Amino acid sequence: MQNQLLNTINSIASLKKLNQKELSILTLELREFIIEAVAAKAGHLGASLGVVELTIALHYVFNTPKDELIWDVGHQAYGHKILTGRKNEFHTNRQKNGISGFPKRTESMFDSFGVGHSSTSISAALGMAIASKLKGDLKKQHIAIIGDASIASGMAFEGLNHAGVTDCNLLVILNDNAIGIDPSVGALKQYLTNVKKGTQKQDNIFEALNFNYSGPIDGHNLPLLISELERLKTIKGPKFLHVITTKGKGLRQAEENQVVYHAPGRFDAKTGDLYSKEITVQPPKFQDVFGHTIVELAKQNNKIVGITPAMPTGSSLKFMMDEIPERAFDVGIAEQHAVTLAAGMATQNLIPFCNVYSTFLQRAYDQVIHDVAIQNLPVVFCLDRAGLVGEDGATHHGVFDLAYLRCIPNLHIFAPRNEIELRNIMYTAQLGLQHPIAIRYPRGRGSIIDWKQPFTKINIGKGTCIKLGTKTAILSIGSIANNITNALELLENSSSFSHYDMRFVKPLDKNLLHSIFKKYNTIITIEDGCIKGGFGSSILEFASDENYDNKVHVKGIPDNFIEHGTILELQKSIELDPKSLSLFLKKMAD
Amino acid sequence: MQNQLLNTINSIASLKKLNQKELSILTLELREFIIEAVAAKAGHLGASLGVVELTIALHYVFNTPKDELIWDVGHQAYGHKILTGRKNEFHTNRQKNGISGFPKRTESMFDSFGVGHSSTSISAALGMAIASKLKGDLKKQHIAIIGDASIASGMAFEGLNHAGVTDCNLLVILNDNAIGIDPSVGALKQYLTNVKKGTQKQDNIFEALNFNYSGPIDGHNLPLLISELERLKTIKGPKFLHVITTKGKGLRQAEENQVVYHAPGRFDAKTGDLYSKEITVQPPKFQDVFGHTIVELAKQNNKIVGITPAMPTGSSLKFMMDEIPERAFDVGIAEQHAVTLAAGMATQNLIPFCNVYSTFLQRAYDQVIHDVAIQNLPVVFCLDRAGLVGEDGATHHGVFDLAYLRCIPNLHIFAPRNEIELRNIMYTAQLGLQHPIAIRYPRGRGSIIDWKQPFTKINIGKGTCIKLGTKTAILSIGSIANNITNALELLENSSSFSHYDMRFVKPLDKNLLHSIFKKYNTIITIEDGCIKGGFGSSILEFASDENYDNKVHVKGIPDNFIEHGTILELQKSIELDPKSLSLFLKKMAD
Repeated sequence: MQNQLLNTINSIASLKKLNQKELSILTLELREFIIEAVAAKAGHLGASLGVVELTIALHYVFNTPKDELIWDVGHQAYGHKILTGRKNEFHTNRQKNGISGFPKRTESMFDSFGVGHSSTSISAALGMAIASKLKGDLKKQHIAIIGDASIASGMAFEGLNHAGVTDCNLLVILNDNAIGIDPSVGALKQYLTNVKKGTQKQDNIFEALNFNYSGPIDGHNLPLLISELERLKTIKGPKFLHVITTKGKGLRQAEENQVVYHAPGRFDAKTGDLYSKEITVQPPKFQDVFGHTIVELAKQNNKIVGITPAMPTGSSLKFMMDEIPERAFDVGIAEQHAVTLAAGMATQNLIPFCNVYSTFLQRAYDQVIHDVAIQNLPVVFCLDRAGLVGEDGATHHGVFDLAYLRCIPNLHIFAPRNEIELRNIMYTAQLGLQHPIAIRYPRGRGSIIDWKQPFTKINIGKGTCIKLGTKTAILSIGSIANNITNALELLENSSSFSHYDMRFVKPLDKNLLHSIFKKYNTIITIEDGCIKGGFGSSILEFASDENYDNKVHVKGIPDNFIEHGTILELQKSIELDPKSLSLFLKKMAD
Repeated sequence: MQNQLLNTINSIASLKKLNQKELSILTLELREFIIEAVAAKAGHLGASLGVVELTIALHYVFNTPKDELIWDVGHQAYGHKILTGRKNEFHTNRQKNGISGFPKRTESMFDSFGVGHSSTSISAALGMAIASKLKGDLKKQHIAIIGDASIASGMAFEGLNHAGVTDCNLLVILNDNAIGIDPSVGALKQYLTNVKKGTQKQDNIFEALNFNYSGPIDGHNLPLLISELERLKTIKGPKFLHVITTKGKGLRQAEENQVVYHAPGRFDAKTGDLYSKEITVQPPKFQDVFGHTIVELAKQNNKIVGITPAMPTGSSLKFMMDEIPERAFDVGIAEQHAVTLAAGMATQNLIPFCNVYSTFLQRAYDQVIHDVAIQNLPVVFCLDRAGLVGEDGATHHGVFDLAYLRCIPNLHIFAPRNEIELRNIMYTAQLGLQHPIAIRYPRGRGSIIDWKQPFTKINIGKGTCIKLGTKTAILSIGSIANNITNALELLENSSSFSHYDMRFVKPLDKNLLHSIFKKYNTIITIEDGCIKGGFGSSILEFASDENYDNKVHVKGIPDNFIEHGTILELQKSIELDPKSLSLFLKKMAD
């Protein structure tokens, strides 16, 4: 019977009763379960397959949930979820109202710390370890499991640097598989490779930081993992275990093609093969429009450079890295560095396109202000995954960017309504802008199949009218315009509504706004960003500033964190989908 | 004659003509000049005294400004400024319309990169070095000079990690004096101490990151510095020079008391002694109210812990570090780690008071959202130096916090009007808040001498009326309320004005706002934060949301970066000082 043993593991207590042979069978069944679940419902695959043995060993050796396990990023925590009481709900993974794709405190007491963004685990675990020490609990264990891509991020170094001068009960486990989502980069990665080969000149960088280092050991050797963890449990103070794993372990295709099988979508569980994609002609993904366009522009303008912090595949900067490798840089999970590197390049009259997911730019907020905007350096920020991102949920929605960027002087902010606008603003940005600019665009596909049109320069700070009506003006920013167009089409009579795409959140098109405020009594702003301080707020500020007393309604993301689900489901839940918008507009028209 | 030689140095070309003996005299004269200038006009002293030899050696050896020098943080760049054409303006240092206390691109072509916040230099220099490589310039040098406190920050590690896999012409000089503003902390600092003593077990952490390492050498031995820099100039690829210096070198008191003489204020240039402080009774600094109050509260509540990223003296957490060292943590320049450490502690039911300067919280923005707010962990953020900070200028004003924090769900935001309110909100925050809270207060002294009153609980989300009038309501947040009170006193007749301190930017006191919007036609909001997306914006959002059509005027920091000067001078320049406010209110009343 399938999952015979796995089905008996209803608690960590039952796991602890297994003998060595049974544990070994459990690894096979757990892998199979993960493969089948992800094959059927999609999700993150490779990372969890790589830590099956480590997951079992950790729960076997440690006293979870009293001992605290923190999975960095959390892509790798599927096995952990399945073994800690969520096997039967696992088919709801990443679905609306289902379990989260990441560890989450509200979901299980075994999820010690919510994750999603990388490199937080050491700091969080150290905070817990210090708390235990203050309480006089000398037995409690605090374990951060972090990948080699994540540990190279600055924040992880800060955690290590502090932990090394404490005597806290902290165990950092480096899950070293030489890859994040894309292959790891950087000097530390090279160093770790040397450690694995035994060819490093130095004794050990982690020992230099005062950790009790052990390893590297084979992360797929369960008995070895168990005995090593048992040994480490008895050692006081900060400890470091270096574990070598293979991402995608146990599924041939996933081992061979680790980037694709990081999150492969649905696939054939039996063969492991991806379903061949239907060859229907669809509009491109925004990320691909970015990727193709930067290559096209960079071929014409040798000042252009591209920068991504560890997202070459996700951002499609990969296209440029393949075609013009000397001018395209994957700097690893290092958003802060990415932004200031771009600033340094801009001082030398290069034109850096710094591509960062909207949610990850939060990591480089100070650098945007302090290194780019104060010096008014014309860095081009391309913010992918702006707005709601869907299944990744609360940690990944790019909904704060308009609010947190809008207060920064000197910075232009543009949101393309479609692929052609993205293309044209990229073209415009490299013609010699005198200011930094943030271009924010959504996850997923655009709306235009025939997007590769000749470049047209966009007038900075100019909005545009999409539809003319009589009574009420709708002002939007970015691709949410399409929902509005669809909503208007759903109305029996939309003649009272005008629709303007303001395009620039900064600088605002004041001329256009004056004409709008003079013409329409009622103005509705709609955005796929947070209401507090966002685009709508900027229109309220304009009205206050210019002494208009028109009625302004602001629609956008409400002031709470939005969970996971498809983008459409989430839009429905906050009434930003076309149907809800049309009901809202109908009410406004009545 | 004083400064006989220094006065002849009108360009770097004239510096290069000096012989060894003359250079040695120049070090004496430059030190003397710095001491006299800072003694007379105040500023940062110790850091610049420590790098006199290094500064001369760098300009002597390298081809500045073509070669790019980047001073991390920039406290140490006074000698650099004096030698590069700004000697005669140096008496205007940090004054309004005078030269900046930090390197600044618009001030001199010798200032390759504007600084202020720490740990940016490696990334910026690498960006420049990559640009040079792309342009085929193999001779150009790019030099980052960074202290041992700054290099321990995560961002610096990200820069090193990237640089180590390039073949760029980058020289990182570690100015190791074992102190930032306060003594350096962390495992890397211990490691560097071992390196200096020759007792490190490991070969070298920087070699592990692929740098060509040399040192440690004596940073006060000018001939040695010159010969070593000459040698390094001929070496390709990333290089690392470890230089040992003494902060405050050349002034006995500054060497002996490095924390105080970091920025000692004015002092006696001849003796080096600080002027004895006038013993007048003054209201306390807000930072000291924080420092004393956290000690007082922590003695009663053993769940309280205090965290500062490298600002024990500046934040006055030092008081707690002295009295309750096991629960007060200086984590070094590591804002990201500080915030997530606090989050980890909060999961264990500790009550972390995380004290970060407003401007530096920009470094931990993602951690506030992702690790604290999403999980709704009751971390207490104490944001010192909020609003305009004066002489430190554009890089350090804490004017964006209300805008960038206001969009974060779950987070409370409070601004105390005076010392008693700061005390009471700290008291309230440790009684068992269910949300994280940010408490933002200004640099400098409060307004109440007799501030140490018994604790009173503050009602969350409740504003208060300070003055009742008839026609117009002024709504303010935080200590700018005092300017408004003063402005109202300057009016011949202020009876038409009411003044409300809203206290909480989140949650807003909606009941109070409803009563205000029903009572007054005209509402004026005043804040010492940026207008875009700030407190005033939140009132506009409330009005839009609740369908009020009252006239709302928003006053605050305009949408440009504010330079340096005294706080009063800067307030005048943007019409937030009492006199300008009274003129504005008079106009409004007419």
